[in-house]
Amino acid sequence: MKNFKVAILGCGTVGGGVAKIISEIGSELSERANCTVELAKIVELNASYAVTRFELNPDLFVDGSNDVNAEQANAAIKEILADKSINLVVETIGGTGDFVYNTCLDILNAGKHLVTANKALLAERGKAIFEAALANKVTIGYEAAVCGAIPAIKTIKESFSGDVIDSVSGIMNGTSNYILSNMQNNNLGFAEALKMAQDNGYAEADPTLDVNGGDAGHKTIILIKLAYGIDVTMEELPMIGIEKIDKEDIEFAEEIDAKIKLICYAKRNGDEIYATVRPMMVKNDNFLSGVDGATNALRFSNRYSGIHILVGEGAGSSETASSIVGDIIFAARYNEQINNEAAPTSLTFSDDRHFEFPYLVTFSTEDAPGTTGFITSEIGAEGINIDTVSHNRRGLDNATFSVATVPCKIDKINNAIENIKKKRPEILVKEPKIMPILYSDRK
Amino acid sequence: MKNFKVAILGCGTVGGGVAKIISEIGSELSERANCTVELAKIVELNASYAVTRFELNPDLFVDGSNDVNAEQANAAIKEILADKSINLVVETIGGTGDFVYNTCLDILNAGKHLVTANKALLAERGKAIFEAALANKVTIGYEAAVCGAIPAIKTIKESFSGDVIDSVSGIMNGTSNYILSNMQNNNLGFAEALKMAQDNGYAEADPTLDVNGGDAGHKTIILIKLAYGIDVTMEELPMIGIEKIDKEDIEFAEEIDAKIKLICYAKRNGDEIYATVRPMMVKNDNFLSGVDGATNALRFSNRYSGIHILVGEGAGSSETASSIVGDIIFAARYNEQINNEAAPTSLTFSDDRHFEFPYLVTFSTEDAPGTTGFITSEIGAEGINIDTVSHNRRGLDNATFSVATVPCKIDKINNAIENIKKKRPEILVKEPKIMPILYSDRK
Repeated sequence: MKNFKVAILGCGTVGGGVAKIISEIGSELSERANCTVELAKIVELNASYAVTRFELNPDLFVDGSNDVNAEQANAAIKEILADKSINLVVETIGGTGDFVYNTCLDILNAGKHLVTANKALLAERGKAIFEAALANKVTIGYEAAVCGAIPAIKTIKESFSGDVIDSVSGIMNGTSNYILSNMQNNNLGFAEALKMAQDNGYAEADPTLDVNGGDAGHKTIILIKLAYGIDVTMEELPMIGIEKIDKEDIEFAEEIDAKIKLICYAKRNGDEIYATVRPMMVKNDNFLSGVDGATNALRFSNRYSGIHILVGEGAGSSETASSIVGDIIFAARYNEQINNEAAPTSLTFSDDRHFEFPYLVTFSTEDAPGTTGFITSEIGAEGINIDTVSHNRRGLDNATFSVATVPCKIDKINNAIENIKKKRPEILVKEPKIMPILYSDRK
Repeated sequence: MKNFKVAILGCGTVGGGVAKIISEIGSELSERANCTVELAKIVELNASYAVTRFELNPDLFVDGSNDVNAEQANAAIKEILADKSINLVVETIGGTGDFVYNTCLDILNAGKHLVTANKALLAERGKAIFEAALANKVTIGYEAAVCGAIPAIKTIKESFSGDVIDSVSGIMNGTSNYILSNMQNNNLGFAEALKMAQDNGYAEADPTLDVNGGDAGHKTIILIKLAYGIDVTMEELPMIGIEKIDKEDIEFAEEIDAKIKLICYAKRNGDEIYATVRPMMVKNDNFLSGVDGATNALRFSNRYSGIHILVGEGAGSSETASSIVGDIIFAARYNEQINNEAAPTSLTFSDDRHFEFPYLVTFSTEDAPGTTGFITSEIGAEGINIDTVSHNRRGLDNATFSVATVPCKIDKINNAIENIKKKRPEILVKEPKIMPILYSDRK
């Protein structure tokens, strides 16, 4: 059997998990890859900790169990790049800075396959990296970058290649899902639920990227590129986080048999693609509404094969590492015949004005008779059919209620709101909240 | 771009679906495969019907829209086999007879890739077929053979290649699941529920292979070979159908918060593999308990990546066809570098005596005081811990109750039953029913 040699840059939570799996089941992996998969070198500044934490052979490291400095690490990386016998490099350094970016380019330009879990790097600076892989006829494995252990990437790339993905909706950020689940199941406010997530290790001290949709956005950009062959930037992707979800929103969700979830969403309509990351009202007949806690899940609606659901662990050391090892085996198997990335397509990135959704619109108004009639009439005047109107919640001197519409374009909702404000400027005491509704039976 | 030419043998429900997808989205498929995927020829006796049903170009058929006889069809197959420009043949003839078996061998021996949905053929006569693929360095695509649209095969082969599958449990026969769902949700007996399935097109006039576990057994054998590299015959695989499930079983299931499902099950313990197809008590905290109707679902418990769930359509024309087209694209992409099937492993096929399960044992006894105490004492005497004992159901002169055990070996259950019979031969009015229990948190 031929040898297939692997180096790992960065031996933290994920990189260490990769080293551990290869150390533990290397011979089974080699059988599957039809070549000897060999872990040749690990570069890690904090080697002493990594050796102990993952029970690894110190000989794999630059200077055994001794920690090394940046200069030594850089020299080791240069050696790996120059070593023709190394076929694949795992980048588990993380971040989006120039060092990791250039290192990835160097790996590919040295004719080596690259496997990475770095969603931020691929989403924000991925274009040149994918181009370098193509130019050098090597592959980039990034199964671990989207939803940890869930085989989202290979399912789209290798399993759904005989179909057209009409839409994909996913719960792809465990932290925000954990927070929303606790708000809904335990009647907590956002701040309390966030603190609980931090106390239980489900949220970082700085949870910004998790709760503002940024992390989910990175994953969505990678999925869109793969599923539809188009490059979308973080600036272009409409993103709304979960910070402003309050108990009232959750009550309105319950009233229409729905749960609020941070949904990564992409939909194809002819040659147009719309995508967004934002809280949506997910009806309870949609599988995603029942996905609680830190679990991740993806729901595909395909033209020929119908509905698919994938559920699994979105994070964790060995969970994410197993996806990386799967990518290593794939590269080892199909080494000489790598087919990179979706070919450029004629699809274009569009916005929600071209797509119809059912929406839940929440109005806070003066508490006066005739208000519901006036507002729903204005919605009707725009040609929007109303599905349900919630019970009216009366406060001290104002009232709140929500209107669920059948699928319509967002412009019509906005027109209706504008007309309401124009005709009775005093009636709305705050800006209406608008949230799309996800059904099970509507694609 | 290079050409990748495909022929289809048999243009019925599935083969016709394949031809339709390629006809409709051929150019997208070619972009993905990085070569021009061309449907070159379709061989079908009943061509006139197929052309109309799937809206296909008659020029693809042997004699246009005209039906052909067996002789003409055989001549056309010979031509395809001799045509060096054809890269891949889709076998959607079906059956396990010599004709289809030899045709598959001929395809592979002619150096062409084979894609098939024929689970019975692969499960019963697959060994020589897989060997021929290996010898000729071509691939067999059979994603469509297991659970229709669900990407079970590629998930195991390409996505879980960096992990160890500790166990897999699946609902892989839509007909029997539809029947069981209706027995449980609508309080029907087996015969009534079967008739309802037949009336609604969910069961064939001869439902034998669906309700006796045979169809699920075929799929299980294919999965075991792929996941564990071992060949198991239909005779070796322990199989129990759903024909004997009655309302009482369903009541006992409800009492322990479970549903009865026909489960395809395989588990690895060290170097031993156990597999079975049989009704199991699936606790409601296990995702599979909520999978109703004709839907299929698979639940994997992996050593490194934890629990995975895949849900999708297990049957249907375009659903199954999309899996076949996915296999065609895969073969086209990695044409020169096909890696066939799991390497032989040192794992052995074992039986349930080496594996522990929690069991539900249902006893029908004389209605006499002290019976429960006597029976549960005998179970305890074998060192089996009891989880719960059900309410006693009293009939005219006998009583029925069930005992849920913690995980134990089946031999101990059998010993306890033997001791009960030996000590008080009169006490059991019929043979106890034994059914494994599937929890969510136990692998």
